Amino acid sequence: MVRRDHARNAELALLLEVAGTPKPGNVDRRRDHDDLRFEHFLAGAVGSAPGLRLAGGDGPIGEAFERAVAGMAEQRGGNTQFGALLVLVPLVRAASEGALSKGGVRRVCEATTVDDACTFYRAFEHVDVGVPDPPAGLEPLDVRRGSAAEPAIRERGLTLFDVLERSASVDGVAREWVEGFPRTFGAAERITASEGPAPDRAARVFLELLAAEPDTFVVKRRGPEAAREASARARAALDGETDPEALAEAFVAEGINPGTTADLTAGALFVALERGLPV
Amino acid sequence: MVRRDHARNAELALLLEVAGTPKPGNVDRRRDHDDLRFEHFLAGAVGSAPGLRLAGGDGPIGEAFERAVAGMAEQRGGNTQFGALLVLVPLVRAASEGALSKGGVRRVCEATTVDDACTFYRAFEHVDVGVPDPPAGLEPLDVRRGSAAEPAIRERGLTLFDVLERSASVDGVAREWVEGFPRTFGAAERITASEGPAPDRAARVFLELLAAEPDTFVVKRRGPEAAREASARARAALDGETDPEALAEAFVAEGINPGTTADLTAGALFVALERGLPV
Repeated sequence: MVRRDHARNAELALLLEVAGTPKPGNVDRRRDHDDLRFEHFLAGAVGSAPGLRLAGGDGPIGEAFERAVAGMAEQRGGNTQFGALLVLVPLVRAASEGALSKGGVRRVCEATTVDDACTFYRAFEHVDVGVPDPPAGLEPLDVRRGSAAEPAIRERGLTLFDVLERSASVDGVAREWVEGFPRTFGAAERITASEGPAPDRAARVFLELLAAEPDTFVVKRRGPEAAREASARARAALDGETDPEALAEAFVAEGINPGTTADLTAGALFVALERGLPV
Repeated sequence: MVRRDHARNAELALLLEVAGTPKPGNVDRRRDHDDLRFEHFLAGAVGSAPGLRLAGGDGPIGEAFERAVAGMAEQRGGNTQFGALLVLVPLVRAASEGALSKGGVRRVCEATTVDDACTFYRAFEHVDVGVPDPPAGLEPLDVRRGSAAEPAIRERGLTLFDVLERSASVDGVAREWVEGFPRTFGAAERITASEGPAPDRAARVFLELLAAEPDTFVVKRRGPEAAREASARARAALDGETDPEALAEAFVAEGINPGTTADLTAGALFVALERGLPV
């Protein structure tokens, strides 16, 4: 038996995430969006592997992330796994350091540098990521500027941790970075403790994560009220009051896409795989 | 844009193959078998990647294959992609030599050595591959003996090409090895020339391959008559006389599993990806 290394567990986590169904509002084994299809996620996962390999090494984290995104973008669906890679890259690094724990990954995040922040910005040049306008006065730090923002980042001496800390209140992935991935590790524990095929466990934990907190990607796209309502509907599906399959159909039809919840699900799958989740 | 290298195209080919649906009788995006599920193929593809990377290098082909199989086997479904890897490994090597053509891959196959044959036999130790009993007198060369067959291989001076040549009449993948992969390249051309999402093209070419020739894996499991009938039913589905989805349900229910046809489909997807098939 050849053991999968950390980078390959991360790649497999991306694949198991998209295979899990129903994951209401997201592309999954049973559902495509119009221009974003299942195979785009397969190609995105395979393409991200060289960057994930860098994450398992000891070079700069920002470069690993930027490389993973560049490879992920080598398909025609657009942004498939940007957020998931932002979750996975520090987790892979922590695992490779033998410290896959909240404290271990928090140390990885806090150790990021100004260079990491600059390469993180460059990653936005590879793919169109849905982000809101920056607050007034912070236009120079708009991630959509890509490498053009580098002087503003360097002038302010912002590390990648600093950059993500500034959006932690509005972005669920950034919040995980700042807080040591509490939701990711919690979800990983529930995946490990549950039963059945890995994609089924992933679908269940996706619903639990969504029910527990509004998805920040839905907030950005549809506003806080729609996001709260989506979480309430996920809760109803978990409680057996509605059919998760029907909810999946409804969310796709309504354009409700809890992408951040999917990102955390991928991270949780990675942690669970590292802890021996059988596939 | 970061271009996928040959090994990653091969890995993606494995993923696109299993995503294509309906592929009657096989695990696909919509169907699982009882103990062999979609996620086993995902893990098999990811696990095979280090071996595929060796195939893209310049070390022994047999070792690349054995390593790919060992990694593939790191999941609980059993044999997911043994035959597909036997198709892909020489194709990846030919591509890495800039000679992805019938002549190029035939040269790769003919250049295999006795050592390659021995490591090929070792690959059977990693996973339970469905093979029939060897002909009378050839028991010492039964692949199921694994490395125990090494003395018999060396005594006879058999290369991997020689080994496969001996089963070319009963095994569709071995026949490709001996003949320069004519069906694989033909299918790749049809994939490239067709339209639509890559998994849909894969499903179509799977039916075409099956309609054109009986699947040797079905022959081994169910006999030549059942295999001929399966091909006739694939032809009827292609001709619009029956619904391919219904055929998929029927084949799964009847235990008709055209695995060799799926192996060639994976090879054809690889060649098509190398030639620019968009995903």
